[in-house]
Amino acid sequence: MPRIAVYPGSFDPITNGHMDIVRRARRLFDKVILTVAVNRSKNSTFTLKERVAMAKACVRGLSGVEVDTFEGLLVDYLKKRGSRVIIRGVRAVSDMEYEFQMASMNRAISPEVESVFLMPDERYTYLSSSIIKEVARMGARVGDYLPAPAVEAVRKRFSRRTRP
Amino acid sequence: MPRIAVYPGSFDPITNGHMDIVRRARRLFDKVILTVAVNRSKNSTFTLKERVAMAKACVRGLSGVEVDTFEGLLVDYLKKRGSRVIIRGVRAVSDMEYEFQMASMNRAISPEVESVFLMPDERYTYLSSSIIKEVARMGARVGDYLPAPAVEAVRKRFSRRTRP
Amino acid sequence: MPRIAVYPGSFDPITNGHMDIVRRARRLFDKVILTVAVNRSKNSTFTLKERVAMAKACVRGLSGVEVDTFEGLLVDYLKKRGSRVIIRGVRAVSDMEYEFQMASMNRAISPEVESVFLMPDERYTYLSSSIIKEVARMGARVGDYLPAPAVEAVRKRFSRRTRP
Amino acid sequence: MPRIAVYPGSFDPITNGHMDIVRRARRLFDKVILTVAVNRSKNSTFTLKERVAMAKACVRGLSGVEVDTFEGLLVDYLKKRGSRVIIRGVRAVSDMEYEFQMASMNRAISPEVESVFLMPDERYTYLSSSIIKEVARMGARVGDYLPAPAVEAVRKRFSRRTRP
Amino acid sequence: MPRIAVYPGSFDPITNGHMDIVRRARRLFDKVILTVAVNRSKNSTFTLKERVAMAKACVRGLSGVEVDTFEGLLVDYLKKRGSRVIIRGVRAVSDMEYEFQMASMNRAISPEVESVFLMPDERYTYLSSSIIKEVARMGARVGDYLPAPAVEAVRKRFSRRTRP
Amino acid sequence: MPRIAVYPGSFDPITNGHMDIVRRARRLFDKVILTVAVNRSKNSTFTLKERVAMAKACVRGLSGVEVDTFEGLLVDYLKKRGSRVIIRGVRAVSDMEYEFQMASMNRAISPEVESVFLMPDERYTYLSSSIIKEVARMGARVGDYLPAPAVEAVRKRFSRRTRP
Repeated sequence: MPRIAVYPGSFDPITNGHMDIVRRARRLFDKVILTVAVNRSKNSTFTLKERVAMAKACVRGLSGVEVDTFEGLLVDYLKKRGSRVIIRGVRAVSDMEYEFQMASMNRAISPEVESVFLMPDERYTYLSSSIIKEVARMGARVGDYLPAPAVEAVRKRFSRRTRP
Repeated sequence: MPRIAVYPGSFDPITNGHMDIVRRARRLFDKVILTVAVNRSKNSTFTLKERVAMAKACVRGLSGVEVDTFEGLLVDYLKKRGSRVIIRGVRAVSDMEYEFQMASMNRAISPEVESVFLMPDERYTYLSSSIIKEVARMGARVGDYLPAPAVEAVRKRFSRRTRP
Repeated sequence: MPRIAVYPGSFDPITNGHMDIVRRARRLFDKVILTVAVNRSKNSTFTLKERVAMAKACVRGLSGVEVDTFEGLLVDYLKKRGSRVIIRGVRAVSDMEYEFQMASMNRAISPEVESVFLMPDERYTYLSSSIIKEVARMGARVGDYLPAPAVEAVRKRFSRRTRP
Repeated sequence: MPRIAVYPGSFDPITNGHMDIVRRARRLFDKVILTVAVNRSKNSTFTLKERVAMAKACVRGLSGVEVDTFEGLLVDYLKKRGSRVIIRGVRAVSDMEYEFQMASMNRAISPEVESVFLMPDERYTYLSSSIIKEVARMGARVGDYLPAPAVEAVRKRFSRRTRP
Repeated sequence: MPRIAVYPGSFDPITNGHMDIVRRARRLFDKVILTVAVNRSKNSTFTLKERVAMAKACVRGLSGVEVDTFEGLLVDYLKKRGSRVIIRGVRAVSDMEYEFQMASMNRAISPEVESVFLMPDERYTYLSSSIIKEVARMGARVGDYLPAPAVEAVRKRFSRRTRP
Repeated sequence: MPRIAVYPGSFDPITNGHMDIVRRARRLFDKVILTVAVNRSKNSTFTLKERVAMAKACVRGLSGVEVDTFEGLLVDYLKKRGSRVIIRGVRAVSDMEYEFQMASMNRAISPEVESVFLMPDERYTYLSSSIIKEVARMGARVGDYLPAPAVEAVRKRFSRRTRP
């Protein structure tokens, strides 16, 4: 029976840090489902459709990696997909407290689900979707931090402001 | 002269973690006033009236525990109630920095007021009102984390979404 | 060639903690430019004009200190002003993670720019513009935490609510 | 090809927290090797032989779990055992900084090795071999924190001091 | 029945930070017992007798404060002294993880015992017995950080090295 | 008058992370004195003479950088050398608490001295002299983390153990 891991997130947009975690997770499990949260209440910069399209373009060519979406309880989604493993990338110590909280809650709801924390490459320690958008908004080039399909999307979204 | 401690918070809604702190505080002081912040600016999930009603229903049967509300400076409220002790539950290291900041400010305004930090039962280390609402919104059962009166209120509020 | 350091921030309003960092930075560099972020998206309590006016009134009399504003990428602003040094005050451990993230991003965009972290006087460890506004809003006196020009502005802004 | 994970440590002595991590790791991987560090320089309370004996007695009955020892570089040991996965239990935020440091170093030496962080049951958040020895030394009962074979060993070692 | 709190520590030597916590604890409880740990294994700079003498000289004149010593389990000592409250001063976020660990262990052994965390004056945030000894050893004056009886003892102990 | 900064440490041995900080500091100040602590009490792996020789070999060719040693109070050393600036590299959040403590103590002794915190390149975030020695002791190659003169010294010291 293949071991399936689920890697949930907003991916708004997907970054090189996310891609690094996908590859690491894939070496540990037979299949990795990168699943984009619908997030009805939270405002996202890109629509669900855009976020999924970017992620799909990025994982093209990676065998055993699928892109999907989920809404509602993550542990319900895992059950539906036949997975018992949640992948989380932890970049920094301050991430951990929230991660422990979520892992604890997920475990309480579904004791058979395990949260697995992976550390991205050091180059991505200080990288996040929000900081990339913050600097892109001000006109910085972000090609070093994003996979090509996301670079394009970010450039279009923030093209109003051009770099001096 | 009885020693009175004030336990302030949003209690939106009151959780088992809050109840644990109330009981611990009560063993240290003659009277504990659980006081619900009015929070005009901050959006709360439940109205002040609802939050007070839940808290009152939960402390029923606990002697020496009173539910009240406050608006404005907490230290002014303490003076009015004849208390010099603020109770704060600290679940995790990351809580502490904000707590130190608030305690420091309160002490600067009213040097005679002391902030007392208590640690809840380990079972409640990763528990907060907001995470409970987050999972309740998605359809999870929250009976293990909330006292009965709060369970009922949370269920009604989030009943639109049913668990699959 | 004079060494110029840039001290960026919202200064909404400027506090005694900010003034302490300005003085420390000035002892290290020939010139310190306190530069107020325009922050179009983020809601500030005081307008850009008000924040600049307060800062200017506060640095009056300090030689080698200038007040300016910036919009867009901070590192672009530094280049324009002929500076390679960003000053950041770090009050507490929890500040550092965000600071490392910003410094890392700035360094990636402009490798010649160095972020220099200074520690304010211990009296200002738990002081921030937002906590001062929080207590001022509730009617507390804030004269111990703000320089005189800011005290006046804060008092006017929050005068609707009077202290009991 | 079976997926093998290595769980290294001093296990001086093995605790219920360690056992919890072993079980969680075993649900993720086909085989888990609990490997006891030889630690020539560091003083351990129990000899290598004792630590191995305790661990072996504890994992008896768990299928797919083996006890071994290692000396020298952990990543060399992994290569020898045909594993690419290091399991680490992370109880608290403060653990993470050291863990990131070790994971980073191991990754630099052997890029194909992945460190996988798992969170033990909340009951074990504040549990460590050293704190158990500290309280056992003073006469406290430690049966709630240790598996039976370790309880016996700890009792004998610290029996000089009896509880009043 | 008077409420008795126990304030345990090495007090090697007692500092102004410790004295600040004693005074704060005394405002909360009827009696505070400052109890010096015997610490047979751990090397202390001052003997138990010296540490007790310093502490006694410092609390002279404070009503409701007693100096004592303890050996073995702290919770056993509390029972003997009729106390259910442990006072701990927490200066900084990094203190908290160890404090939570100890509080958790004490609670597991004696559920009726409560650990109460107090925050010292900001001036003492970065103060500890060990850092004072470190700088005294190198010849710095330490009169601002220690109560008079401790200043004298520290000066004698480190008098070999004189300040240039 | 040239601005002189002092960069103190054990440098046991000097790493690429230290060298990175030296270069960053040199861009901010006219002269940087890398000063090796004598550390009589603390056991160092390399003698003072060896640590100084390694550092000297590493800074050869860097203009405006000097290697020296100091004993006793760092702030006394600064006065002797005509410097008012202490440089500290901060790799991670957990470093900061100790750094704040030392900076606070130094400031109390010599208010005119300023501690300046710099962030090394991300590649060195998880690098320290002690972790390098730990892995070198077990036979790992450390050429990526140390400047050439230190690589040689470390290899000789730990040559007893050869890599399998």
